[in-house]
Amino acid sequence: MATVKVLSVTDAESNPRVKAVFDDIRAVRKTDFINNFWRGLANQPELLEATWNRLKDVMSADGNLDPMTKELIYMAVSIANNCTYCIKSHTAAARAKGLTDEQYEEFLAVVGMAFQTNGLVTGLQIPVDEAFEVA
Amino acid sequence: MATVKVLSVTDAESNPRVKAVFDDIRAVRKTDFINNFWRGLANQPELLEATWNRLKDVMSADGNLDPMTKELIYMAVSIANNCTYCIKSHTAAARAKGLTDEQYEEFLAVVGMAFQTNGLVTGLQIPVDEAFEVA
Amino acid sequence: MATVKVLSVTDAESNPRVKAVFDDIRAVRKTDFINNFWRGLANQPELLEATWNRLKDVMSADGNLDPMTKELIYMAVSIANNCTYCIKSHTAAARAKGLTDEQYEEFLAVVGMAFQTNGLVTGLQIPVDEAFEVA
Amino acid sequence: MATVKVLSVTDAESNPRVKAVFDDIRAVRKTDFINNFWRGLANQPELLEATWNRLKDVMSADGNLDPMTKELIYMAVSIANNCTYCIKSHTAAARAKGLTDEQYEEFLAVVGMAFQTNGLVTGLQIPVDEAFEVA
Amino acid sequence: MATVKVLSVTDAESNPRVKAVFDDIRAVRKTDFINNFWRGLANQPELLEATWNRLKDVMSADGNLDPMTKELIYMAVSIANNCTYCIKSHTAAARAKGLTDEQYEEFLAVVGMAFQTNGLVTGLQIPVDEAFEVA
Amino acid sequence: MATVKVLSVTDAESNPRVKAVFDDIRAVRKTDFINNFWRGLANQPELLEATWNRLKDVMSADGNLDPMTKELIYMAVSIANNCTYCIKSHTAAARAKGLTDEQYEEFLAVVGMAFQTNGLVTGLQIPVDEAFEVA
Repeated sequence: MATVKVLSVTDAESNPRVKAVFDDIRAVRKTDFINNFWRGLANQPELLEATWNRLKDVMSADGNLDPMTKELIYMAVSIANNCTYCIKSHTAAARAKGLTDEQYEEFLAVVGMAFQTNGLVTGLQIPVDEAFEVA
Repeated sequence: MATVKVLSVTDAESNPRVKAVFDDIRAVRKTDFINNFWRGLANQPELLEATWNRLKDVMSADGNLDPMTKELIYMAVSIANNCTYCIKSHTAAARAKGLTDEQYEEFLAVVGMAFQTNGLVTGLQIPVDEAFEVA
Repeated sequence: MATVKVLSVTDAESNPRVKAVFDDIRAVRKTDFINNFWRGLANQPELLEATWNRLKDVMSADGNLDPMTKELIYMAVSIANNCTYCIKSHTAAARAKGLTDEQYEEFLAVVGMAFQTNGLVTGLQIPVDEAFEVA
Repeated sequence: MATVKVLSVTDAESNPRVKAVFDDIRAVRKTDFINNFWRGLANQPELLEATWNRLKDVMSADGNLDPMTKELIYMAVSIANNCTYCIKSHTAAARAKGLTDEQYEEFLAVVGMAFQTNGLVTGLQIPVDEAFEVA
Repeated sequence: MATVKVLSVTDAESNPRVKAVFDDIRAVRKTDFINNFWRGLANQPELLEATWNRLKDVMSADGNLDPMTKELIYMAVSIANNCTYCIKSHTAAARAKGLTDEQYEEFLAVVGMAFQTNGLVTGLQIPVDEAFEVA
Repeated sequence: MATVKVLSVTDAESNPRVKAVFDDIRAVRKTDFINNFWRGLANQPELLEATWNRLKDVMSADGNLDPMTKELIYMAVSIANNCTYCIKSHTAAARAKGLTDEQYEEFLAVVGMAFQTNGLVTGLQIPVDEAFEVA
C-alpha cells in the first residue's frame, strides 16, 4: 500500500484542478486509463500539476530523440534507482511503443554491462582520462 | 588516484594476456588509444579479459539497438549509479558517435524527469497497476 | 518474508537482554507496540541493543532539531536509499507527530526537486563553486 | 571538469532566454552570484528554464515547511544520492540560513542513523507492520 | 510479477541453448533446482549463457577467496544496491555453505557500520588521506 | 574540501572529549596516525565518540568473522554506496591485513558479478523463489 490513499478517479476528480490534469492525460495519451501514480499524486494537486506538465513536455514526441529511446533511458535510470513501479510502467510503455524481445534482451545486456563496469570502476577508483574531458 | 597503479601501456603489455586484449581493443575500436580503465584492469588479467570480451559483444554494432542508443542507456545507468569515470567516458563516446547538443539536452531532460518521478514514486510507495503486469 | 524469523514478542523476550531493550522501547515511546524491525533484530541481541541505544539518543526530543524535522530527514534518506520499511515507518511517525497533508506535499516536492537536480548535476558533472567551500 | 563548458555569465547571457533566467535568479536570491549549476545548464536553455522555474516555486519561502527544513531535506537526499555538488551547495545554503554547528551535528547523526537502519532493514528484509499502512 | 514470463523448466528447455545452460547449472550445483533468475533469463538465451558462464567462473570454489567470503561480498553489494531477490538468494546460499547465526549477526553489524560511515563521510565530504593512496 | 574544517590533531585535542577518543584510536590501532575522518568528526564530539565506540566493537578482532573478511564486506558496501573515502581507506586497511593481489582481483570479480546480476534482476523484477524464504 502507498503512504497516501490512491484515489479513485471519481474521488480525485472532485477537485477541479485534478480533473483538468486527468483530462489532459487522457487527451495526450489517447486513453481513458489513469494509472496509480497520478491517482496517488492527486492528493497533492500542485505537485500533480507540475509533474504532469513537465513530463508531458519532456516525453513529447516532437523531440530530438525518438519516443522509444526516451523510454529506454527512463527504464535505465529507474533500474539503477531501483524504482519497481517506474521499471514496470516504463517497460510496459516501451513495449506498447514497439520494443521487441530482441531489443529488450539487448537493453538488458547493456544495463548489466554498465552495472558491472560501474562497480569495477568505482572499486578501482579509476581517474578520468584527459581525452574524455571537454576541450 | 586509483586503488591500483594505472599501468603504462608498455608495462601492461609485458603480460602477453594483457597484450592480446589491448591488441583486440585497438583493432575493434580502430584507435591506438587505450583508456585508463583497461590500464587499471591490466593488473587483473583474467578480469580484464572477461570484461573486455563481454563488453565487445554487448556494445558491438551488429545488434538490435543502434550504437548511440546503447551509449545513452550506458550513460543513464552510470549517472544513476554515480560513476564519474563511466559518465565522462560514455558521454565522450556518444558525442564521437554523433550525439548532438539538442539530443544531449533532451537526454538530460529525460534523466532529470526519471530521477524526479523515481523519488516521488518511492516516497509515495505507489503500488504497480495490474495493467503493467505481464500477462 | 524477512531473512530471519520475525519473533513474537513473547519468544523474543525469553532472552533477558532483548526483554530489557523492549522494556526500554515501551518506556521511551509510551506504547506497548514493538514493531517488526525490533522483533527481527531480536535474533541478534547485541546488534539490537547497540541499534536501539543509539537510535534513542539520536532521535530524542532534547536536541537542536525538532522531532518532526528529524523524521523528515530520516524519510528523505530512506527514500533515496529506497528502504520501503523505513519510508513507511517514518512517514507514519511523522504523521503521528503532526505532519499535515500540506507539509507532506511540500516535503515530496523538495524530495522530487532534489532527485531531479541530483540527476542533472551528476549527468553534467558540475564542478563545485569556490564560494561553497568552507573557508 | 563538466561534460559541458561551464559558461561565463557574459557568454551565457548572449542568449536572451538564459539572460531572463539569470536575471530572475539574481532578483529572487538578491545576489549577483550565479553558481556553476546554472552556468552549466545555460548550454540547455529549455532545461535551464524549466529547472529554475520549478526550483523557485518549490524552495520559495511561502510554504508549509520553513526554508531551513527544506535545505536539510535537500541535503539528506543529496547525501544518499551521493551528489557532491548538491551536498556542498545546499550545506552552504543551510548555513547561510542560520544552521548552527550543533544543528549540523544533529543532522549528521540522524543521517548516519538512517543510513545504518536502512542497511540493516534491507539486509534483513523486514516486512512492513500493518500499523504503518494508511487506513 | 516479473517484466517477462518466468518460464517453467520444461518450456525453457524447449530451446536447446537454454537446456545446455540448465544442464550445466544442475551439474555444477549438484541439484535439480533451477531458480527463478535463470528461468526469467531463459527468455534471453544469449544473456542467460553469458551470465551463467561468468557467474560459474567467478563463484567457483577454486579461487583465492573461500566460497563463504564470496557470498558475503555478494550479499553486501546486493544490500547496498537494494536487490531483494539477490539478498534473499545469496543469504540462503551463505547459510547453505554454513554461515552461522553469530556470523550473520556480525555480518549485519559490519554492513550497518559501513552504511553509517558511508553516510557520514559523504555528508562531510572528507578528503582522502595521502596515506591511503597507492604509492 | 570537506563541509567542515578537517582539524589538525593539536586543534582537535584541545577538546578533552576528542582527545580521549584519539587516545583510544591510537591504543587500539597501535599507531599515531589519526586519519581525516576522525579529524573531521572532531567538530562533532558526541558523534565522534558514538561512531568510534561502535566501530571499535564491530571491527574488533574478537569476532565470528575474521578481520580481513570484515574489511571486504566494508569495501563491498562502500563501493555500492559509492563512498570514495571509504573505498580507499578500507582497501588500504585490507592490504595492511594481508590482502593479496590475487584475492583483490577475485574480490573485484565478485563485486562486478554482483553489480551485474543486481542490475539484471532489478530490470527483470524477478520474484523470490519460495525455496529462498526462511521456514
